[in-house]
Amino acid sequence: MDITILLYDRFTALDAIGPYEVLSRIPGATVSFVASERGVVRTDVGSLGVEVTTALDEVDRTDLLLVPGGPGETRAREIGTTVEWVRAIDATTTWTTSVCTGSLVLAQAGLLTGRRATTHWGALHVLARLGAIPVEERYVESEKYWTAAGVSAGIDMALALAARIAGDDLAQMVQLGIEYDPAPPFVGGSTRSAPAHIRAALEPGLRYAD
Amino acid sequence: MDITILLYDRFTALDAIGPYEVLSRIPGATVSFVASERGVVRTDVGSLGVEVTTALDEVDRTDLLLVPGGPGETRAREIGTTVEWVRAIDATTTWTTSVCTGSLVLAQAGLLTGRRATTHWGALHVLARLGAIPVEERYVESEKYWTAAGVSAGIDMALALAARIAGDDLAQMVQLGIEYDPAPPFVGGSTRSAPAHIRAALEPGLRYAD
Repeated sequence: MDITILLYDRFTALDAIGPYEVLSRIPGATVSFVASERGVVRTDVGSLGVEVTTALDEVDRTDLLLVPGGPGETRAREIGTTVEWVRAIDATTTWTTSVCTGSLVLAQAGLLTGRRATTHWGALHVLARLGAIPVEERYVESEKYWTAAGVSAGIDMALALAARIAGDDLAQMVQLGIEYDPAPPFVGGSTRSAPAHIRAALEPGLRYAD
Repeated sequence: MDITILLYDRFTALDAIGPYEVLSRIPGATVSFVASERGVVRTDVGSLGVEVTTALDEVDRTDLLLVPGGPGETRAREIGTTVEWVRAIDATTTWTTSVCTGSLVLAQAGLLTGRRATTHWGALHVLARLGAIPVEERYVESEKYWTAAGVSAGIDMALALAARIAGDDLAQMVQLGIEYDPAPPFVGGSTRSAPAHIRAALEPGLRYAD
């Protein structure tokens, strides 16, 4: 199966690489990273550059589309050709998926209208404004549209998706292979559990324009 | 602080990118990806290429070294110049760290002799043979040497390390920022919890030569 991961400048690395690590291990999977142009696409932090050898206009179908999030998502969503490509490619997919604010790109393309979906906790209100029904869950399945919460949630979604695509045994083999037995040093990885002062310190930098 | 991540052909993407996502968010941190030569370094699966703009011989010091693992580690460990570089750079670090089988490179350089350390569950016996004291923990701290278990364990280690470097509040902000509130779809992410048939199916492909 063909798996296509859309990149754009200032994407968040783990949004793309977490699911990549899982989905690329599905037998028969071929993963391509695509962007507006061939070349090196840089992450939000800027110090990581990922090679892109396929431009969007070279791709007219895929089995699974994954759109990561990140600060650059706002700009990506403004580029008509990117949004149109997402809409066109979605017509060919078996699965259309996102991590973090990647779901805003799907929503901008009109793919999540009236659907339950999720995104980074700081952007749920934008997802609502774009016509989706925002849900605070680790990942949300709505027919072929799977959306994950912020950044690290893509790993959980990808394992569940791998199970759906290739069976529970394969997904469990991947999970044990990447030794995914998480032990976060703090409990506050969600807005439900984080101390109020941590959320308050973080929120201004994350705020998405309405 | 300068953070240097050593790459080599056939490294495992998440080993490097999980900690990158965390450590790059420490205020003042500058992350560099380095390899034997400048150019694009490909992961074990092969479909992801990471840009490397700095060769090993251009780096003579760093504050934090991180060595990821992956199938290519076996070859990297055989390259005298890489191992010598690790040994030399370690003399300049405040922290020398690894994820997964990256610890075998550290051990090959003689840095883990007699120290408690960990690695991917499938390689603990190799770590022992290289002179370390293998420990089945999510990550192990031995003075400035921090080693994480397989692949995804680098995220947990990096958050704990971020707390040590920049304080608990900063680490908690990063954890909430990447919404690290993991919800694995299966319980079997470690050898202690995985079903026997899953481990049996996976083990032959992971076996490290003694």
